[in-house]
Amino acid sequence: MIAEIVAVGSELVSGQALDTNSQWLSRALGSLGISVHYHTSIGDDLAENIAAIRIACDRADLVITSGGLGPTQDDLTREALAAVAGVSLVEHADSLAAIAAMFARRNRSMADRNRVQALLPTGSAALPNSCGTAPGIWMNVGRSRVACLPGVPNEMKVMFDEQVVPRLRDLGAGGRVIVHRKINLFGRGEADVEAQALDLTARGRRPEVGITVSEATIAFRIIGEGATEAEALAQIEPTAEAIYERFGPLIVGEGTDDVVHSLLRELAKAGTTIAVAESCTGGLIAHWITEIPGSSETFPGGVVSYSNQAKIDILGVPAELIAAHGAVSPEVAEAMAQGVRERFHAGIGISVTGIAGPGGGSQAKPVGLVYLGIATAESVDSRKLELGPEQPRGVIQRRAAKYAMNWARLRLQGVV
Amino acid sequence: MIAEIVAVGSELVSGQALDTNSQWLSRALGSLGISVHYHTSIGDDLAENIAAIRIACDRADLVITSGGLGPTQDDLTREALAAVAGVSLVEHADSLAAIAAMFARRNRSMADRNRVQALLPTGSAALPNSCGTAPGIWMNVGRSRVACLPGVPNEMKVMFDEQVVPRLRDLGAGGRVIVHRKINLFGRGEADVEAQALDLTARGRRPEVGITVSEATIAFRIIGEGATEAEALAQIEPTAEAIYERFGPLIVGEGTDDVVHSLLRELAKAGTTIAVAESCTGGLIAHWITEIPGSSETFPGGVVSYSNQAKIDILGVPAELIAAHGAVSPEVAEAMAQGVRERFHAGIGISVTGIAGPGGGSQAKPVGLVYLGIATAESVDSRKLELGPEQPRGVIQRRAAKYAMNWARLRLQGVV
Repeated sequence: MIAEIVAVGSELVSGQALDTNSQWLSRALGSLGISVHYHTSIGDDLAENIAAIRIACDRADLVITSGGLGPTQDDLTREALAAVAGVSLVEHADSLAAIAAMFARRNRSMADRNRVQALLPTGSAALPNSCGTAPGIWMNVGRSRVACLPGVPNEMKVMFDEQVVPRLRDLGAGGRVIVHRKINLFGRGEADVEAQALDLTARGRRPEVGITVSEATIAFRIIGEGATEAEALAQIEPTAEAIYERFGPLIVGEGTDDVVHSLLRELAKAGTTIAVAESCTGGLIAHWITEIPGSSETFPGGVVSYSNQAKIDILGVPAELIAAHGAVSPEVAEAMAQGVRERFHAGIGISVTGIAGPGGGSQAKPVGLVYLGIATAESVDSRKLELGPEQPRGVIQRRAAKYAMNWARLRLQGVV
Repeated sequence: MIAEIVAVGSELVSGQALDTNSQWLSRALGSLGISVHYHTSIGDDLAENIAAIRIACDRADLVITSGGLGPTQDDLTREALAAVAGVSLVEHADSLAAIAAMFARRNRSMADRNRVQALLPTGSAALPNSCGTAPGIWMNVGRSRVACLPGVPNEMKVMFDEQVVPRLRDLGAGGRVIVHRKINLFGRGEADVEAQALDLTARGRRPEVGITVSEATIAFRIIGEGATEAEALAQIEPTAEAIYERFGPLIVGEGTDDVVHSLLRELAKAGTTIAVAESCTGGLIAHWITEIPGSSETFPGGVVSYSNQAKIDILGVPAELIAAHGAVSPEVAEAMAQGVRERFHAGIGISVTGIAGPGGGSQAKPVGLVYLGIATAESVDSRKLELGPEQPRGVIQRRAAKYAMNWARLRLQGVV
C-alpha cells in the first residue's frame, strides 16, 4: 500500500508556517507498515486543490489530507474532494448535531458559517472529531482510499489514532511493521564510507540502506519490514552487524547519538574526566557536553581563551611560545591542552586553536586552519586540520569541535 | 511567476527527517515577489523522481529541487532531470575540476564516486557550489526554469543566494515586491507585549503585523508590499516607528538579531569588554558570542566552571563562600562575576550559576533556580531567576544565558 500525504494551507507554501503534520503522519503510517511515497503541500486555492488531490488519487492507494476543513471561505478540502469524486456536497445530520452540541458544551453560540463543516461529499463517511468542531472525511475515490483530517495538529493526531487507524487495520494494514535503525559514524568522508558499503546500499536490496550526512556525521539508515516488530528488527540485524564490523571505531552511536555522546560514554567507562581549552570553537565543545544531563560527572569545566592574554594568564601558555609560533600552532595547542588538564585536575585535556574566519586568515595561516591538542598523564600531542577556507565560520567551528571530541574518544578507546 | 519546490530524500517521506528547506525557499522566493504554489517531497526512487519533476514542470514556471545531488547511488536528481528533459548526462569539465580542487584544498583524495557529481544534463548550466562538492543545475525544461540545489541546508542557501537569485532577477522577478521586517524584543512576556500592541496586530490592518515568540525573544513581523522595495519599506516604516516608540529599551535588534547582537553592539559602543563565568549554562554564552565574526574585539574569553573546585581554583571563589551558601547562591554568583572580570582584565564580568535539571533540584533549590552575577569596576550585583521546574534542561540553559546577556546589555545602556 503506497500512501501520499497532502497538506493544505497557504501559510505552508508561502513559508510562513512549517508543515510538521506530514512528518508525523509518515511516521504513524510507517509503524503500520504503510509506506509513504509522496508529500504535497498546496495553498487555499480550489483549482489547485482539485488538481493535487486528483494526482494523489492517481498515484497512491491511500491519500491523507490535513487542513482545509474549517468554517471559513478558504477551507476548501470538502469541495475539492467532491469535485475529484464527481459528486455533490450534502449536509450530514449527525455531524451537524455534533457541531451544535460542541458549541453548546462550551456555552458559545454557533455561527452560521459552522454549518458548512457538516457538508460532506455524497458517498463519504464522517470521521467524528472528539476534540474540535470539524468532522473528517473517509471516502473511496477510484482505486484510492482518502482520509481528510483537520490541520490543527492535536485534532489531526487524535482523529488519526481514533478513526483512521481502525479503518486501515480493517483494510489489512498493520499486518506489516516497518522499523528504522540509524547508525552514526564520524571521521571519514561520505564517498569513502559509501565506497566500502556499495553492497549494502545497492538499490533493491532488502533491507534497504541509505546514507545521509549532517555536520560531517554520516548516518546509515536501515529500513526493515516484517509481520511483527521483532521480525522487522531481525531482518535488519545482519546488516547492522556488517556495518559494525566494517566501520567499528568510526561508529559513535545510534539514533540521535553523535560524537559527544560517544565521548561521554568512553569517559564514564574509563572512569576519567575531560577539561577543554577552546579558542576558535569559543565554548561550543563545553556547550555540547553540558547539554547532556549528568555530564558534570565527567566534565569539571573548561576555558574559552579567546585572547592571547587569556591563554597566558588562565592556561599558563608561555608568552614566548605564542610570540615564536603564533596562537594558531601545534605548540600552543599542546600547551593549552596541558594547561587546562592541570588546572581542572582532569584525566584528559583537549584544546582547539584556529582561524574560524571570515577574517583573520593569511597566506601562511588561512581560514579553516585549526590545531587540536590532547594531553593525558602520559603524553601530549597535537594535530592539524584544514577545514576551510571556503566554509562559513559556523561550519568550521562545529567541525573543529567534533574532530577534537572524536580524537579524545578514539584515544580513550585506544584506537589512536 | 508560479513556483514549485521539490524536496528529494527518502528520509523526508518516511518521516525520519523534517523538511525545512522548502519553507526557507518559499520565504526566499516570496521576498522576490515569486509565489510558491506547491511543495512536493519524494523519496530516492528514480521513476517517482521523474514523474514528480514532470508534474512540477507542467504546472509551475519555476521549479526548485533540493537534495539528490550527492555522490551516492541514491542521489538521482541529475538522472531524473535528464530523463524529464529527454537528454543524456555529460561530464562537465569545469565542475569536475572544481570538485577535484575542493578535495585538493582539503588534502583529501577524491573518491571515484565523486566524479558522478560532475555529470549534468546536456543543455544545462552548472551552478557553482562555493561550500561543498556538488554543483547545482540550471536548465530550461519546456515552459519551466528548473534549479537543482543540494539538500544540505547550508549549501542550499548559499547556492540559492549566490546563483539562483541573480538568474531570477535577470528573468524579471521581483516585479511586485513583498518585504518583511522583524523587530525583536527581549525581557517581557508575550501576552504583556501583545496587550500593548492590539491596534497594530488587528486583523485586516495594512501593513499586517504578527507576533511570534522563540526562546523568550518576542518578534513583531511586519509585512509590506509595493511596486518597488522602497515603496514596500515605506509602507512598513510608520508601524516600525510605533513599535520602537512603545518598546524602546526592550528591542534587541531586527532580522536575526537577538540579545547577543545587542550586547556586542553596546560593548563596542562603550569601548569595553566582557568576560563570562558559566556554571549551568556550560559555555552557551561564550558559544553564542563567538559565533559572531569579530567578537574577539570585545570578548577576551570565559570560564566554564562546572565543578566547585573549578570555581575555587580558576575563578578564585572562596571555598568558605560555597560551603556557607552553596554553589547556587547570590554570593557565589557575585564572586564568580568578580573573579572572571579580574582574571580576563575585562570591563564587565557576568556569571550564571543554577540548576538546569533534570536532576540536582531540591525543595529549597528547585530545578530552574538560577543566580546571575554582574561585576564592573564600580559595583557587583546579583539577581535571581526562577525558570523551572517544569522546563527542560535546554530551555533553562538558553533562557538563563539570554537573561544574563540582557542584563549586561541594559546595564551598558544605563537602563538598569
